[in-house]
Amino acid sequence: MNKKKIINDPVYGFINIPTELVFDLIEHPYFQRLRYIKQLGMTHLVYPGALHTRFHHALGAMHLMSTAIETLTNKGHYISEEEQEAVIIAILLHDIGHGPFSHALEKNIVQGISHEDISVLLMNRLNKIFDGRLSLALEIFNGTYPKKFLHQLVSSQLDMDRMDYLNRDSFFTGVSEGVISSDRIIKMLNVVDDYVVVEKKGIYSIEKFLIARRLMYWQVYLHKTVVAGEQLLGRILARARELAMRGEKLFSTPALNHFLVNSISKEMFMTEDMHLQTFTCLDDTDIMAAVKVWTGHTDQVLSTLCTSFIHRKLYHVDIMNTIPDEGFVESLRDKAAGKYKISKAETAYFVFTDAISNYAYKLDDGNILILMNNGKTCDITQASDNLNLQALAKPVEKYILCYTKDLV
Amino acid sequence: MNKKKIINDPVYGFINIPTELVFDLIEHPYFQRLRYIKQLGMTHLVYPGALHTRFHHALGAMHLMSTAIETLTNKGHYISEEEQEAVIIAILLHDIGHGPFSHALEKNIVQGISHEDISVLLMNRLNKIFDGRLSLALEIFNGTYPKKFLHQLVSSQLDMDRMDYLNRDSFFTGVSEGVISSDRIIKMLNVVDDYVVVEKKGIYSIEKFLIARRLMYWQVYLHKTVVAGEQLLGRILARARELAMRGEKLFSTPALNHFLVNSISKEMFMTEDMHLQTFTCLDDTDIMAAVKVWTGHTDQVLSTLCTSFIHRKLYHVDIMNTIPDEGFVESLRDKAAGKYKISKAETAYFVFTDAISNYAYKLDDGNILILMNNGKTCDITQASDNLNLQALAKPVEKYILCYTKDLV
Amino acid sequence: MNKKKIINDPVYGFINIPTELVFDLIEHPYFQRLRYIKQLGMTHLVYPGALHTRFHHALGAMHLMSTAIETLTNKGHYISEEEQEAVIIAILLHDIGHGPFSHALEKNIVQGISHEDISVLLMNRLNKIFDGRLSLALEIFNGTYPKKFLHQLVSSQLDMDRMDYLNRDSFFTGVSEGVISSDRIIKMLNVVDDYVVVEKKGIYSIEKFLIARRLMYWQVYLHKTVVAGEQLLGRILARARELAMRGEKLFSTPALNHFLVNSISKEMFMTEDMHLQTFTCLDDTDIMAAVKVWTGHTDQVLSTLCTSFIHRKLYHVDIMNTIPDEGFVESLRDKAAGKYKISKAETAYFVFTDAISNYAYKLDDGNILILMNNGKTCDITQASDNLNLQALAKPVEKYILCYTKDLV
Amino acid sequence: MNKKKIINDPVYGFINIPTELVFDLIEHPYFQRLRYIKQLGMTHLVYPGALHTRFHHALGAMHLMSTAIETLTNKGHYISEEEQEAVIIAILLHDIGHGPFSHALEKNIVQGISHEDISVLLMNRLNKIFDGRLSLALEIFNGTYPKKFLHQLVSSQLDMDRMDYLNRDSFFTGVSEGVISSDRIIKMLNVVDDYVVVEKKGIYSIEKFLIARRLMYWQVYLHKTVVAGEQLLGRILARARELAMRGEKLFSTPALNHFLVNSISKEMFMTEDMHLQTFTCLDDTDIMAAVKVWTGHTDQVLSTLCTSFIHRKLYHVDIMNTIPDEGFVESLRDKAAGKYKISKAETAYFVFTDAISNYAYKLDDGNILILMNNGKTCDITQASDNLNLQALAKPVEKYILCYTKDLV
Repeated sequence: MNKKKIINDPVYGFINIPTELVFDLIEHPYFQRLRYIKQLGMTHLVYPGALHTRFHHALGAMHLMSTAIETLTNKGHYISEEEQEAVIIAILLHDIGHGPFSHALEKNIVQGISHEDISVLLMNRLNKIFDGRLSLALEIFNGTYPKKFLHQLVSSQLDMDRMDYLNRDSFFTGVSEGVISSDRIIKMLNVVDDYVVVEKKGIYSIEKFLIARRLMYWQVYLHKTVVAGEQLLGRILARARELAMRGEKLFSTPALNHFLVNSISKEMFMTEDMHLQTFTCLDDTDIMAAVKVWTGHTDQVLSTLCTSFIHRKLYHVDIMNTIPDEGFVESLRDKAAGKYKISKAETAYFVFTDAISNYAYKLDDGNILILMNNGKTCDITQASDNLNLQALAKPVEKYILCYTKDLV
Repeated sequence: MNKKKIINDPVYGFINIPTELVFDLIEHPYFQRLRYIKQLGMTHLVYPGALHTRFHHALGAMHLMSTAIETLTNKGHYISEEEQEAVIIAILLHDIGHGPFSHALEKNIVQGISHEDISVLLMNRLNKIFDGRLSLALEIFNGTYPKKFLHQLVSSQLDMDRMDYLNRDSFFTGVSEGVISSDRIIKMLNVVDDYVVVEKKGIYSIEKFLIARRLMYWQVYLHKTVVAGEQLLGRILARARELAMRGEKLFSTPALNHFLVNSISKEMFMTEDMHLQTFTCLDDTDIMAAVKVWTGHTDQVLSTLCTSFIHRKLYHVDIMNTIPDEGFVESLRDKAAGKYKISKAETAYFVFTDAISNYAYKLDDGNILILMNNGKTCDITQASDNLNLQALAKPVEKYILCYTKDLV
Repeated sequence: MNKKKIINDPVYGFINIPTELVFDLIEHPYFQRLRYIKQLGMTHLVYPGALHTRFHHALGAMHLMSTAIETLTNKGHYISEEEQEAVIIAILLHDIGHGPFSHALEKNIVQGISHEDISVLLMNRLNKIFDGRLSLALEIFNGTYPKKFLHQLVSSQLDMDRMDYLNRDSFFTGVSEGVISSDRIIKMLNVVDDYVVVEKKGIYSIEKFLIARRLMYWQVYLHKTVVAGEQLLGRILARARELAMRGEKLFSTPALNHFLVNSISKEMFMTEDMHLQTFTCLDDTDIMAAVKVWTGHTDQVLSTLCTSFIHRKLYHVDIMNTIPDEGFVESLRDKAAGKYKISKAETAYFVFTDAISNYAYKLDDGNILILMNNGKTCDITQASDNLNLQALAKPVEKYILCYTKDLV
Repeated sequence: MNKKKIINDPVYGFINIPTELVFDLIEHPYFQRLRYIKQLGMTHLVYPGALHTRFHHALGAMHLMSTAIETLTNKGHYISEEEQEAVIIAILLHDIGHGPFSHALEKNIVQGISHEDISVLLMNRLNKIFDGRLSLALEIFNGTYPKKFLHQLVSSQLDMDRMDYLNRDSFFTGVSEGVISSDRIIKMLNVVDDYVVVEKKGIYSIEKFLIARRLMYWQVYLHKTVVAGEQLLGRILARARELAMRGEKLFSTPALNHFLVNSISKEMFMTEDMHLQTFTCLDDTDIMAAVKVWTGHTDQVLSTLCTSFIHRKLYHVDIMNTIPDEGFVESLRDKAAGKYKISKAETAYFVFTDAISNYAYKLDDGNILILMNNGKTCDITQASDNLNLQALAKPVEKYILCYTKDLV
């Protein structure tokens, strides 16, 4: 069987599958599951093209990794064939632990455990299935492998993950301003003292990369209506769990049911196999199918939330620089209690606040170093002419106030 | 509320919603449902980007319609504001009757009724909801409105539907060869004797359009693995219905269940409201959620088919110019019966043949007419210099033989 | 004759010529001359695609102006048909005064007069030819027309000129990072108190626009080899003039000859008609044809410079943050004098320094104002979250040292 | 010195220069001359972006050759490093013999000698300069090297030359319909019996390639106004030669003068070195600079033609399927003689006919073979399903009638 397949990708043209092991990993049900997990949660409510999946993103990041390897080996940095395959596997599987709707429900299915934790669990399990052939990939992924620069290609502020998701999210949303010149940036990568650096002439490309990422955050990832959709979905899951815990009957697939009726701690999830096993059966469709049925549930809170979601009657969202006025929030809650004839506690499903924040660049966390003409390296915030990039290293924190539109 | 929204579309940049009525139709749950119906069924199993939906296609076709209207009115053809809105609504809603996975399951959910039939039913219903304001759109859609050329923009061999789907399917699959110059073709449209024609200098663009469409058929829509995926999904539904009819319990959403346990004739569907009402609750997610659960069903045929589907172990497919050899098919069936320990009848789920056919161009069915320099029109097959387009008007018929891969 | 032509443009697809007067201006020899003046001088020595002309740029800027007018009138700002045509003419003709190789030779053909001055002279002359029908366009161009915002669309830090040249130069050089979202930016334009502003949600697009422009400056317009090519061309013209003034015979077209043998002051140029008349006969080809012939001139300085240019043996260029060391420059000059057997004065053709500078954003000069949600406006440097755009308002000044490569 | 440069190309992104010898050839004045020879002659009069040069095309074709080599060696066809460099040099230099305005003036500068003849002359000369290191490239170019398939990559109906020019001409004209999927086609190339073939699944891509090429011919290369511009330029040169032969003084560069005042036969050109040497100094700028000056020449025929050209008052052109009516042509000539007060013979500059023809596909001339699934090959016209490609193999012949617009 020919395992050296080529996959069509509208973003990069063609993606090659480099080795048989990589092919077999892609074919594995754990990885195939990612076909049904949208990269950007409910963003398609605003940008209807944004239906691309973690599956496609993982392949795209793998493709960029291949080109990065080629560039670095051409510049004389030795990367053995084993290391090449391992770093490719590490990037391929970096998101394998994502659950339904990616970040949108990350905290609502299993509390206290991140998708990165689950990625490691699943990579370990795959390592067993594949007789230890993923050990090197795991070392690179976990950052324990001596050649640190390989880990940086997988995870840092200029890793293949970011480059792919910016390109891909731009492509599918149609927000062309998020496109970055990954080709050009990768051609300017180099390694100094076991650290991935960018050659000096790439400074302006990096500036543009940071600005493009910042734009994508505020224009897409944290877009008001996207936030509204994802918050609503989160509340729906929360209400469903609340009802399920109380013993109410709820339509759901068996896999989703498992996470509705059980309260699973991080430790339980890490140690009792059944939870992870069930998790690998979950994807976006379990949620959507249930939410549609719940529009007819007898619990008015749940059915109202679900109907709003399906009919795209989302929350009103205000994004503010300061904490929302408590008095105003209270008054909205009172109105909601009256209007929907629900308890004050239940109004939290219809009126609530939250905070969102974003760094365009983080100091001291996988910094982007520039290789100057004199052979020394310095942080991009120092190297850039007179664009004050240090300002970008301060987090932007914003507050949101969500409430159902019929309250005002 | 601002109803003159702009929607981001990676294919055309921006799509304007032209009127309030159009906005309200887009917001209606019947139309929102199209967000969850993939344009190309299971094509994403081969082209992972092909996750775009009927929702997005309908908006795209609407956008092209706006530009076509602009071109024709600029050329002096009067189209009243009412007609403009109506023809836009006709194209917007032309696919509203599609069910889960579009064509892939068209014959498996409700037998004997086409998606066009259901589109008309839903448009009629919307017409009631919107107090008769869709009457003109319906006349145009049904071809009963005197200005015939408006109907042709909605449905003919050079309609806005085809132009959008070729562009959009090319974009999302990454098969760039399917891109057509809709901009250029639309700029060359004109109307003669109440018939949409293409000005002479557009001949070569039309040739390319026909060749691009032909390419998309054989390279994408009828791609071996796409066919394999869709045939498998069809068999799954068929088996599930068979079991349900027998009274076996099957996990499913209530909406899907309705179509599994009832045998609904075309007449029943057209007359008993409940069927259509239930149909409007169905989308891709009902199917996917069920198929995943059915992988654990006790019926071995069903669970085997579902597991194959979810793990992407699809049929082997041969596409041939002649009818598959019956003896060979029989021998495969015998093998299947032995191997899976099933009845000979049940082997039809694992070994079967089918025929597929396609016209690149049809004579006598919404022909493409060219407006020659002398003011007369002639069919594109006559107008084209020496490319023998008439040859394209013969159907290409091919035969397929599908069987599970472990049989040989 | 049909004057409502459509022009193919690879950047925007199609460009419409809006009125007959605009058509006639485009057909006029003064405007047709721009077909032979490259937008980016000798940049094609580095980016071989950069052969696009002022002609194409002017049409592109006109196209953007049409879309800006459409956006603003849709938002309720009245712009009469006369004003529309006038502002379109103003942008169409804004660069009509450019001479051979645009900026590259701006100071070498006629001293002391800018291309803007010549644009005004030519627009006035066209105004006479067209019986005063350009008067309004001239008022707008000169900033004397009461509706100031029209002038801003022609000339400010966010004018149609900049938007087109960034898009166009990116397209033809292949430096995709310079592409800006002109579509999106234009859609977010508005007018407040007779001033063009950008709506708040456009902040990130403006940030990206500024960063893209900065990148284009340092990566393209001030690219080392581009600078080397243009400096060399400048020295060639200077030497040719020096020789011509001395009475030496030089091959040249009559038009070029006029500017070689005469010393024309700004005042002379403005008042004596013959100079402007002759100027309108000059374009890139006069220069290139002459330079090729001069490779065989008896003056060794001229022939050496010309041969270097034609054979693309350009200067070595250092770009530095500080003034080049005088001692080092002196030593290079001494070497040059010895090596080429020329006078010390003549070494200035082979060894010289210069300064280049650029603002990414200028305070107090056609500022970019943001329209905040509260209806007030504020400068982009104030409105942007925590990207320190004020830093961009400081000029970046760099020094260059050029010398022939065989000197070290 | 780093000779492994990367060149920016808006069409393919980046082009790598593979070896030092290739770098040195690119730097050579013979090759640098191609910077000043437009690929598409005067096509920019219709498509203003079409200013790209033979220089850029040669680099692009070289790039495609590199990818073709990579594909074929990956499929197990051995191509030695020497052969790789040679076939790359062969394609790089295939057009080096082009003169000013490429095909537009091919018959007007030197009669009886094609640009291919001159390419061979120049390659031989470069071979001497580079000490015989181009011998293998010459064998491949001339088709005398045993591995015939290498020659096919350089020259056949599916060579890298055609693929690049279709892509490049589409890109710069903005006629997006001419874009071909060179990536995809090259990935499907293979070699059978020392012949380049296309794998079966590529049939539809080849169909589209042929149709795209046909479209480019009639929409761009043989566009009415392009024909008008190039015919006019040809007549100008003819008239200038006529005058020069008579001994009239004409402004021109020395190189152009050589070809105006001498009547050089093919044999003289091949044997007397001076002609070739002078030819290498000629490019578009010699012609343009002269034509501009000739607008003021005392010969009324010449000055009229040149003024028409510079002011873009081109001939009226009719393109017909039959030979133009002689009586009508005569009547136009009579009018011209009276109107311009010229002899009947001279009217041939203002009224004339010509024939143009084009094959979309040629049988028996570097045919395109398809590799069928059974391992056999067959001609694309046989392999294609039911698109009658044989029809494309008949030449399309058309007749043109040109005359100055003021004659009717």
